Amino acid sequence: MPARRRPPLPVPLWIARKRDGGALRDHEIRAVIEGAVSGAVPDYQMAALLMAIVWRGLTPRELDSWLQAMVSSGDRLRLGDVPGHKVDKHSTGGVGDKISLCLAPLVAACGVAVPMIAGRGLGHTGGTLDKLEAIPGFRTALSPPEIRRALRDAGFVICGQSERLVPADRLLYALRDATATVESIPLIASSILSKKIAEGADALVMDVKVGRGAFLPSRAAARALASTIVRLGRRAGLRTIALLTAMNQPLGREVGNAGEVREAIEVLAGGGPPDTRALTVRLGAEMLALGRAARTVADGERLITNALASGAGLDRFARGIEKQGGDPRVVDDPDRLPRARRRAVVRAPRAGVVTVVDARAIGQAATVLGAGRLRKEDRVDPSVGVTLHSKAGDAVRLGESLCTVWYNDRARWEAAQPLLERAYRLGDRALRSSPLLVEEIR
Amino acid sequence: MPARRRPPLPVPLWIARKRDGGALRDHEIRAVIEGAVSGAVPDYQMAALLMAIVWRGLTPRELDSWLQAMVSSGDRLRLGDVPGHKVDKHSTGGVGDKISLCLAPLVAACGVAVPMIAGRGLGHTGGTLDKLEAIPGFRTALSPPEIRRALRDAGFVICGQSERLVPADRLLYALRDATATVESIPLIASSILSKKIAEGADALVMDVKVGRGAFLPSRAAARALASTIVRLGRRAGLRTIALLTAMNQPLGREVGNAGEVREAIEVLAGGGPPDTRALTVRLGAEMLALGRAARTVADGERLITNALASGAGLDRFARGIEKQGGDPRVVDDPDRLPRARRRAVVRAPRAGVVTVVDARAIGQAATVLGAGRLRKEDRVDPSVGVTLHSKAGDAVRLGESLCTVWYNDRARWEAAQPLLERAYRLGDRALRSSPLLVEEIR
Repeated sequence: MPARRRPPLPVPLWIARKRDGGALRDHEIRAVIEGAVSGAVPDYQMAALLMAIVWRGLTPRELDSWLQAMVSSGDRLRLGDVPGHKVDKHSTGGVGDKISLCLAPLVAACGVAVPMIAGRGLGHTGGTLDKLEAIPGFRTALSPPEIRRALRDAGFVICGQSERLVPADRLLYALRDATATVESIPLIASSILSKKIAEGADALVMDVKVGRGAFLPSRAAARALASTIVRLGRRAGLRTIALLTAMNQPLGREVGNAGEVREAIEVLAGGGPPDTRALTVRLGAEMLALGRAARTVADGERLITNALASGAGLDRFARGIEKQGGDPRVVDDPDRLPRARRRAVVRAPRAGVVTVVDARAIGQAATVLGAGRLRKEDRVDPSVGVTLHSKAGDAVRLGESLCTVWYNDRARWEAAQPLLERAYRLGDRALRSSPLLVEEIR
Repeated sequence: MPARRRPPLPVPLWIARKRDGGALRDHEIRAVIEGAVSGAVPDYQMAALLMAIVWRGLTPRELDSWLQAMVSSGDRLRLGDVPGHKVDKHSTGGVGDKISLCLAPLVAACGVAVPMIAGRGLGHTGGTLDKLEAIPGFRTALSPPEIRRALRDAGFVICGQSERLVPADRLLYALRDATATVESIPLIASSILSKKIAEGADALVMDVKVGRGAFLPSRAAARALASTIVRLGRRAGLRTIALLTAMNQPLGREVGNAGEVREAIEVLAGGGPPDTRALTVRLGAEMLALGRAARTVADGERLITNALASGAGLDRFARGIEKQGGDPRVVDDPDRLPRARRRAVVRAPRAGVVTVVDARAIGQAATVLGAGRLRKEDRVDPSVGVTLHSKAGDAVRLGESLCTVWYNDRARWEAAQPLLERAYRLGDRALRSSPLLVEEIR
């Protein structure tokens, strides 16, 4: 008789149970996630299971085990020597969403540490890491000691996910991307939260975008994701709240990496477009309340507003940039940020009122210009982008400039132009404007 | 600029469309099946697509394309030089189902050629190839010229699927088995029909089993499979009908490879158990009608009955065995078939009437004895099996023998014994007996 071998895992039986609407047991979920990382569970079995999960969902109990198994697949950042509460913010991704750049230094200036693991752009939405890398010298790949040092010295850090943090998430994400199994609320929720827990956050403010330019355009789907994340996060010991915020038109006036850093600097200097500023104040206030630095959200709003007025947030931003190898002088001299060589203007084809600035179309145009990625392996051009002069509700004259496009490659501009022209819709009267804050999930 | 490469297939978009309930286009299905065989579409994408198909199904149009792409993935048997109609029979698999062994030579004796590509047993059901290989010397791996020669000379051939016939089916079948995506009516239907079309059949009689021992126990599922096969087969130019037949208790009295060959010989010699004989006559008559050798099914039944009485079917069986390298003397001297060294008897624990002989439990017991496979790589023992002395409706005395077990390994008998004891249920009165022929789908 041959030597006893460990029998193969009965993964097909587990897949069949999920396919038929049943639930997986804790040890089965652990074995599947560990097996996916070790190679004991082949990709094709994981792919079939993922599609069955898209179909049937996961129960709260299954989801708790799934999240735990994801977190346990790798290292956790040990932030015990960083004083105070650690609060993070995460957005499901929007167009022109540079809020993380404003928020992390402001919240740090108000006494709450922000350990933020951010992502890159894909498709029509930008990524926080791509934006920060527009700052000359800025490094987003940091070692755990570098992360701890930046957190201690600047009060915040914004960096990429290391190889050893939640390896199951990187593996599953690549597989989900290739197998059309991204669109699953429990899988999205566990992917986001696994990184927040592994990075050592105590609390999380989720910004779930709703509308035309959002990953989940419908309010029902956005609400379902938000409440799944809030409940799952709390069960896992992470204080979590979520805001649903509008993403019909781009946030602020700048779309594109260097331009968005410029706009973040304007906000931190006390100016900036009203929507970017308002969302920064609100999300910052929520972070301060969760981080016990403000008794109420209203108190938090006052603290953030003061930090904007005093320039304390801008100082922190400079300190954090320096800690991550970037040139802190951009804060006072934004012309040190890259700027595309050429510009073009999209003009109003009629007089009227802007009724729609389609965030998805603007995001796609920016991607085509080179600000984002159509495929993961694409390189981003930090200098290109779009500056919106008119937004929904603004009156425009015939031939007035709607937006300026910054580009380096004529063919890319020509490909982006029709997208931009279609992104703007003009009418005779403004449509009812939708509020920026759509809903709160607590 | 790099040399133009063929862009990767947008398989994730196609998977997403199916996941969301949409339909795939003809060229997309062709590309997916070709890509699965060539390696251009990785297993994990195919696995996710298969699970989405289990979930959402395939439209008739998609299913036609899927079947066509499967058939086109390999060679087709060219049977142009074999005279007459070619009719096959296929069963979804039962316990004690040796009908193919009786049917192929009988139908051939009545003038219709039977090119039958058969399978092996897995789980609780036996496989026709395993049964035939109980005949000393019998070869089931034949080249296309050998298949044509056997068909011309004996009027029938029963062999395995060659490497080059429907390679997409072998690949998909292995993947489906490992990913819990076997249970899909369109995938089952296209798998069966792809082999029938590639083997060159003009017509097909499907025997879809219903009940306790069937692959699809419920009548609704069996009916859905039968009607999908009938409609898909006809659209593909294969004259197809289906019968739903009962598989609550094993068919006939023998379960196990050599024993089933013995029972087939009894039937061909004009005897045999009534249910095996009746199903042989009915399915044979359907094949003759589809093969234009009988004007009606009733005419077909007369022809088959005559061939049983005259021994013409038995002669053909001997001829076919010889053509495939086997010892034709088994037909006159069944003791040349292997017989297990030991036997044991399961006795009635009370007097009464047999109410149930659970086909699934008997099949599992036979598999445990070594007549079938628990895993694909298991070897089959042709000599072991079960002979049923009592079937549903039979009155038995306390201690009377219910069945005899033929075994070579005491440990296997001990493992099979409780299954066999539980398979028989005794009561005070017979249950209403269900008819062998449950439904016809034309």
